Amino acid sequence: MAVFTELSTEDFINLLSLYDFGRFDRAEGITQGVENTNYHLWTDTGRYIVTVLEGRTRGKDLAFYDKVTRALFDEGIQTPIFYRDLSGGFVQNVKGKSCVVSKYLEGASIEADSLRAEQVGSAGKLLAQCHVASASFDPSIVRNNQMGIEEWRRLIAKTGDKADVFEQGLSSRLLKEIDVIEASLAGDLPNGVIHGDYFTDNVFFDAQGDAVAVIDFYFSCTDTYVYDLALAVNAWCFDDSGEFGPDFYGCFVDSYQCVRVLSESEKLAFSMLRKAAALRIISTRLHDWFFTPADAMITKKDPSPYLKIFDFETSWFA
Amino acid sequence: MAVFTELSTEDFINLLSLYDFGRFDRAEGITQGVENTNYHLWTDTGRYIVTVLEGRTRGKDLAFYDKVTRALFDEGIQTPIFYRDLSGGFVQNVKGKSCVVSKYLEGASIEADSLRAEQVGSAGKLLAQCHVASASFDPSIVRNNQMGIEEWRRLIAKTGDKADVFEQGLSSRLLKEIDVIEASLAGDLPNGVIHGDYFTDNVFFDAQGDAVAVIDFYFSCTDTYVYDLALAVNAWCFDDSGEFGPDFYGCFVDSYQCVRVLSESEKLAFSMLRKAAALRIISTRLHDWFFTPADAMITKKDPSPYLKIFDFETSWFA
Repeated sequence: MAVFTELSTEDFINLLSLYDFGRFDRAEGITQGVENTNYHLWTDTGRYIVTVLEGRTRGKDLAFYDKVTRALFDEGIQTPIFYRDLSGGFVQNVKGKSCVVSKYLEGASIEADSLRAEQVGSAGKLLAQCHVASASFDPSIVRNNQMGIEEWRRLIAKTGDKADVFEQGLSSRLLKEIDVIEASLAGDLPNGVIHGDYFTDNVFFDAQGDAVAVIDFYFSCTDTYVYDLALAVNAWCFDDSGEFGPDFYGCFVDSYQCVRVLSESEKLAFSMLRKAAALRIISTRLHDWFFTPADAMITKKDPSPYLKIFDFETSWFA
Repeated sequence: MAVFTELSTEDFINLLSLYDFGRFDRAEGITQGVENTNYHLWTDTGRYIVTVLEGRTRGKDLAFYDKVTRALFDEGIQTPIFYRDLSGGFVQNVKGKSCVVSKYLEGASIEADSLRAEQVGSAGKLLAQCHVASASFDPSIVRNNQMGIEEWRRLIAKTGDKADVFEQGLSSRLLKEIDVIEASLAGDLPNGVIHGDYFTDNVFFDAQGDAVAVIDFYFSCTDTYVYDLALAVNAWCFDDSGEFGPDFYGCFVDSYQCVRVLSESEKLAFSMLRKAAALRIISTRLHDWFFTPADAMITKKDPSPYLKIFDFETSWFA
């Protein structure tokens, strides 16, 4: 799917000259993920992940991701922390783009259509553990959500009439829904550092089916925990076609609450935030559906399942 | 608490001569548990658990426990499987009693009053995993429940008026309750091998707080899964004084159901079976309170918290 930037053996050897990781053995592009280019890198001393940061990820945010992954790691949660180079830095330049080398993590993600309820529950528990850990972070670890409501408006407005191929007048309908959501959002929900992209391909499980690691913090930011939960529920509790899975929903949310109990105000806001969370994904998928360059090595994600999720959230809680 | 049978260095050296475990280093009595005598045994090659089987455990049931622990172990659940000696057997005779050497397991139990909801949830999940595994056991792995309703009657009748120190007329009241429960029990609930003693001291957790091992299968038998769940809920979801913990209850039962969903008939029977499960514990604790020999190295367990649990179950679901 997504190897946007092809790295040569020479690129890897140059990169490795900055670290104390031994000699280059081999590298292999990782075809998952839609935002950045990732490689598995093997040297004679170990295994690493090399990430080339593409379009939406800005180099200046890397210090934030570095702090977040380290803070979670220090709380016992496995994350892909960035390794320091021989000079103490961690951002390199490869082919004109920012590049980091991060920790290889044991475990593997599970295809959404192979997940069992207990694994979904374990993922819910791990998300809550991230939120609890985040509540104790240094308060200087802050980053505005770049994918907030204004960005959804911009992306959907830009898409405009092109979205008619999915549904006549879709862009207008969604822009109106955004107005409704914006008017109804509570302002004082518990907040802190959220993952922002807690999809099934960003959680690794061990052989026993326990969620043991979280990757891909490039959407992490400061926002409300229950919005992060809403994003995650939409990702974990609907199948690939956008069909709701009530067992998965129960296991995800109940297991989350075994670690972190939602407050009454969070519970009240939850259904609206699940709609908001669906809109956030629709806005990027819809935009990328029409504006991703044809030569990008990427499978564009169909926005249709999330349109179905959005309508389900709307009807379920009407 | 419970080292009923003191073993000497000579006893351990004699025992080790039957195995290929290297030379005796040291041994240490384990003061938990109320049924058998357990020792940690260290040799120059490893660490083992030595169990001397006391009163209630009959040698002829050992083949059953052996099969159960091995079958669960084969399904990926950590259990204290019995080691084979040099002749292929696993039951020894020490001081005239049956004795086994079993696997030392990593992890540790957590004191009931230190448990957090997420750990209780993890224990519920592990119990369900045992039940799911048990459903695929060889059908020849069968053992009648020796602690069934007739045994409760016998123990409570034997206790008789002595129980008046807890409550005037308690034995009569409990015997009547047993009649009511017996008359209302459904006969066709899903059944298989149950643990039968899934108390907090029989579940080990790892450093991350995940339940990773189950020990003490000396009450395991063939009975309904939801009765085992009822016994476990009473053990995990009430505090030491018998006070109900609704958060713990939710986490235990929800996490259980993420792995194994209760059928409608199981849900219907559940409240009555929680009363039954409380009575089963009351019957032995009440009996042992009056009939345990004064010279036994054991702290008798006060039946009072379980009387409170029984009355709570009765009022909650009246």
